[in-house]
Amino acid sequence: MSGLWYTEKQTDNFGITMKIKKSLHTEQTDFQYLEMAETEEWGNMLFLDGMVMTSQKDEFVYHEMVAHVPLFTHPNPENVLVVGGGDGGVIREVLKHPSVKKAVLVDIDGKVIEYSKKYLPEIAGELENERVDVQVGDGFMHIAKSENEYDVIMVDSTEPVGPAVNLFTKGFYAGISKALKEDGIFVAQCDNPWFKADLIRQVQRDVKEIFPVTRLYTANIPTYPSGMWAFTIGSKKHDPIEVPEERFHEIQTKYYTPELHKAAFVLPKFVKDLTE
Amino acid sequence: MSGLWYTEKQTDNFGITMKIKKSLHTEQTDFQYLEMAETEEWGNMLFLDGMVMTSQKDEFVYHEMVAHVPLFTHPNPENVLVVGGGDGGVIREVLKHPSVKKAVLVDIDGKVIEYSKKYLPEIAGELENERVDVQVGDGFMHIAKSENEYDVIMVDSTEPVGPAVNLFTKGFYAGISKALKEDGIFVAQCDNPWFKADLIRQVQRDVKEIFPVTRLYTANIPTYPSGMWAFTIGSKKHDPIEVPEERFHEIQTKYYTPELHKAAFVLPKFVKDLTE
Repeated sequence: MSGLWYTEKQTDNFGITMKIKKSLHTEQTDFQYLEMAETEEWGNMLFLDGMVMTSQKDEFVYHEMVAHVPLFTHPNPENVLVVGGGDGGVIREVLKHPSVKKAVLVDIDGKVIEYSKKYLPEIAGELENERVDVQVGDGFMHIAKSENEYDVIMVDSTEPVGPAVNLFTKGFYAGISKALKEDGIFVAQCDNPWFKADLIRQVQRDVKEIFPVTRLYTANIPTYPSGMWAFTIGSKKHDPIEVPEERFHEIQTKYYTPELHKAAFVLPKFVKDLTE
Repeated sequence: MSGLWYTEKQTDNFGITMKIKKSLHTEQTDFQYLEMAETEEWGNMLFLDGMVMTSQKDEFVYHEMVAHVPLFTHPNPENVLVVGGGDGGVIREVLKHPSVKKAVLVDIDGKVIEYSKKYLPEIAGELENERVDVQVGDGFMHIAKSENEYDVIMVDSTEPVGPAVNLFTKGFYAGISKALKEDGIFVAQCDNPWFKADLIRQVQRDVKEIFPVTRLYTANIPTYPSGMWAFTIGSKKHDPIEVPEERFHEIQTKYYTPELHKAAFVLPKFVKDLTE
């Protein structure tokens, strides 16, 4: 069929709409409704439960900003865990850090991994890397049974509906703290300040109860609601806004820079208010 | 009618769509197609030639970031010119600076002013202020006949189609330079880096030929294409990234802060590349 447009209702009353060249795959998995499509504007795109997860054209923003902010904050990240992130984009960025010896990825939905490898190869390609251990399973349970194991944990989940609902709870953050080493850091995507202010406020409040250093930063992702995405950092020791200059080593990026790392924590007033 | 959705195609293949409570006014003016509507998500909104100009819910971002960045960069802005901006939002922010003695607004389309006053009163209300001189006329011609007159000039135009096409030319920037005093500053909105990279590159190149200090900064505007909006500054003397701390005085804002003023100039790598 031609002339198709895909509309994601980002709220009840607002959405984005994009022209579809071709539907590549649709499937109700055990966990969510998965759609892969070729779009005119953004290249191939992955949708889960009707929400944009990633696109070939703008994926670099999310993946770079999830990975490099905590990894450059930690002085020597060797063991890394990605919860969710079955498209492989965060893993690709993690592997740009030579200190990383092992990166474990735990995604609950093997179909996301399978179809990302097929239709988003430049995003998912590094899932085959020998430094990566890909596990199909429940990230919440993986965290619960880990102790003093990881330097950096990244929560690359969907919104807190469906399979990701447990990943936005205080119990999960406590588990992350236990799974991290004594100077560990975690980051979690936490939606956007325009439509989900209450969620961000709650995540900040919960993480603050467990981690001595709690921060919020943002990045511009045009295919995500409002175009401004927020990330919460919880850290046992190292502060992401006080990274010494010598810690930044050269990497290839399209969005992240060491200067932007720090500027991303300088928030618009109405967003800063959510952290207080 | 109920069940109406308004879709703005921001590119040929991508757009935003929003639920309309009520159409308030539509009119082909002498210059453009003007629509005012009440939306469920964003409150009342103004569209010109099918493009979102402003909404009650997110207007503060654009208006604060156009006004306060150049006004805090200048040590003593007294005479200010706004080209375009008939909705009055930039003027409202300009008047928050007590140093400003006179703010001239020149919009080519009196209908924008008229219907903004009617349907966007909290944006347009300050157009009646005694420090403001509202003129319905051609901003390009106003600039051409001004010399050594303004401390700060703000170009709050539509995209470079229709009536605004002259406002994206080197001749216009040269006119602005002549209209500014010897330490004057101007700012112009220049669309977004995702869909209009070439435009930003061209504006930066043109402004650099005329102004010794040329800078680019961005802000998150959810109803504008890509959610990331760019602004070019041309300055004869004062550098917006080197504003001394004591210059910032207290004002009421929802987006702008002195810290964000500086952080807004720290660009994602692919955006920084457009300035080089």
